[in-house]
Amino acid sequence: MSDEVKIYKGLDGVVIDESKLSLVNGTDGKLIYSGYKIEDLAEHALYEEVVYLLWNGHLPNATELEAVRAEIAAGAEVPAPVLAMAQMLPKDAEPMAVLRTLTSALAHYDDESEDSSPAANRRKAARLTGQVMTLVANWSRIRKGLPVIAPRHDYTVAQNYMYMLRGEAPEVNAVNAINAFMVLLTEHGMNASTFVGRATTSTKSDMHSAIVSAIGTLKGSLHGGANTEAMRMFLEIGEVENVGPWFEREIKELGGKIMGIGHRVYKALDPRAAVLKDRAEKLARASGNGKWFDIADQLANLARADAYFIERKLYPNVDYFSAIVLYTLELEVDMFTPLFAMSRMAGWTAHIMEQTANNRLMRPDVLYTGAMDLPWLPLDQRP
Amino acid sequence: MSDEVKIYKGLDGVVIDESKLSLVNGTDGKLIYSGYKIEDLAEHALYEEVVYLLWNGHLPNATELEAVRAEIAAGAEVPAPVLAMAQMLPKDAEPMAVLRTLTSALAHYDDESEDSSPAANRRKAARLTGQVMTLVANWSRIRKGLPVIAPRHDYTVAQNYMYMLRGEAPEVNAVNAINAFMVLLTEHGMNASTFVGRATTSTKSDMHSAIVSAIGTLKGSLHGGANTEAMRMFLEIGEVENVGPWFEREIKELGGKIMGIGHRVYKALDPRAAVLKDRAEKLARASGNGKWFDIADQLANLARADAYFIERKLYPNVDYFSAIVLYTLELEVDMFTPLFAMSRMAGWTAHIMEQTANNRLMRPDVLYTGAMDLPWLPLDQRP
Repeated sequence: MSDEVKIYKGLDGVVIDESKLSLVNGTDGKLIYSGYKIEDLAEHALYEEVVYLLWNGHLPNATELEAVRAEIAAGAEVPAPVLAMAQMLPKDAEPMAVLRTLTSALAHYDDESEDSSPAANRRKAARLTGQVMTLVANWSRIRKGLPVIAPRHDYTVAQNYMYMLRGEAPEVNAVNAINAFMVLLTEHGMNASTFVGRATTSTKSDMHSAIVSAIGTLKGSLHGGANTEAMRMFLEIGEVENVGPWFEREIKELGGKIMGIGHRVYKALDPRAAVLKDRAEKLARASGNGKWFDIADQLANLARADAYFIERKLYPNVDYFSAIVLYTLELEVDMFTPLFAMSRMAGWTAHIMEQTANNRLMRPDVLYTGAMDLPWLPLDQRP
Repeated sequence: MSDEVKIYKGLDGVVIDESKLSLVNGTDGKLIYSGYKIEDLAEHALYEEVVYLLWNGHLPNATELEAVRAEIAAGAEVPAPVLAMAQMLPKDAEPMAVLRTLTSALAHYDDESEDSSPAANRRKAARLTGQVMTLVANWSRIRKGLPVIAPRHDYTVAQNYMYMLRGEAPEVNAVNAINAFMVLLTEHGMNASTFVGRATTSTKSDMHSAIVSAIGTLKGSLHGGANTEAMRMFLEIGEVENVGPWFEREIKELGGKIMGIGHRVYKALDPRAAVLKDRAEKLARASGNGKWFDIADQLANLARADAYFIERKLYPNVDYFSAIVLYTLELEVDMFTPLFAMSRMAGWTAHIMEQTANNRLMRPDVLYTGAMDLPWLPLDQRP
């Protein structure tokens, strides 16, 4: 029976729905959000413009942009009981697990948490996008014993994040770099976390549940956890002159993987990696410490010239150079993945709304390969 | 392009993996857990026997059964900070949302939360199965302002649940009914919550994340939420003599659905419903109040004789008569779904371990139907 049934393990190439949100062309290395090339968006767009685009299907004019910015900023206040809960958590708790718990807890203080109407979902999408930002920025503070900082109503998401993280007026280059990172990470088709968010929604569960599922799924090292893992790898290599010996030993001899190289869909250069490489280099040079960029660049060059990587079409993905960008901005390595989650909020919520608008319960099948027709044996007759 | 691409919306019939855990034969209305018929298990098995079966692939002998019972009971203690968090939550919070938050919080106090090795996962499966039981039973108390009761180390899951819920030594008939309910609900192939739990696991995320995803997914009214919805429908009907007029108006005239009738996979009587119908009737008669069973039974008979239901093969599913069983045991209607979650813990954890043992990242695709090649327009040039 096993021979006859086609098993779609990993669901490779299984098209589960239509979507107007993004096109991921892995063969040519192209990425489009609702009609716009990722390169244009990364160069020009405010994160809020992309959020508006994904939620509405078109770019905002100046009035619409200011409205969505203000809505997210005003909705970004985290209820006091959730902040109190955050204060109670162990300071060394895994940050994505913390974000999962606190985002789940937001539901208990959201009057619309059980209302999945289109209008309520749209409002919750804005609140959750803002609140997750506030939680991510403040967890870095809370675990160091620093006082919580509330979001400013006149700031963008990138400004507010840097402001709350640092506790001072944010520096424009850092804000621009975070904004570009967020734009690049906002949306990416049917990746595992987005897929799980849609699957949770498909039972008619609520948006908080779907976002919590997505956060828990992004957490894994084969998904959002990879930017943190990539940076840990660069830190382990430590010096530029170690790159060659490290590659020889860890990859060629021991058969290890390079974290951040290779992608399920991209069999060409991830277009986000191209943008981030450029950003990473400029930021690193400007910071006066180009070492981590040089390590990453040199390792990528070794991989690019290696037959194993060439044959398998393994290129740097979005996580590879984003690790350098975030590290150069002096962000904490274990907070890279929460920053990814915060950026992906707009994409996740857009997909949840798309799923809700035209829903069908996701209920696949498995091939049973276990025992059949076993007679019940009373306890005292078992071996 | 849309015409050429096959879209598996809802993933109907898409086989995503092999599994040795259960066989759901929807055509014939048969359900098997690792070789054993559900009818045998519901009649003879302790919940812990089924847990052991799913985790190990064979039924336990007496020593093994006592070991797994004791392990679950001893691991069922909920850390004090999580109970403190529960005390802080709004008393009217949605119970499945509460369970999602508190289960997520358990991770912060579990030394093995980030260890996904087979041995650690097996230990976490036992702890989580016990802790979720303790949380479900005690949330009923906490929200009424009653003191928390700790699980007893010498009790089974069904005993402990009833003991903590009631605050007194549990009554044997109630324990047996809860045990049978739990056995029937333990495992059910690739339903949405189990599927989402496996998909979360597929990114190499941890067991707590996967269980939290599963809880949030079960919460929806198209899945675990249906038992609560079914009981609310029976309560709305209110009296046996209202069944006929209600069916005529709500179903025939207004085209409504009967909650708990119809199932994605079963196109015959759900074998769990058959067992539960029998249990529900006995419990109801013994309680001296047969009204709710009679309402459910009469409504099911109307549906069974109706052409619409016959043509579409819509039969009562597990949620339909389980609502009557749980209501007759005087459980709170909005706690039916948390009880489902608590029962499904063994199945979810077994699937997470099966996925971990032979993993591939779940990454399906979508068909992009949005705009293409839009030129970037500066903000001041947009309409």
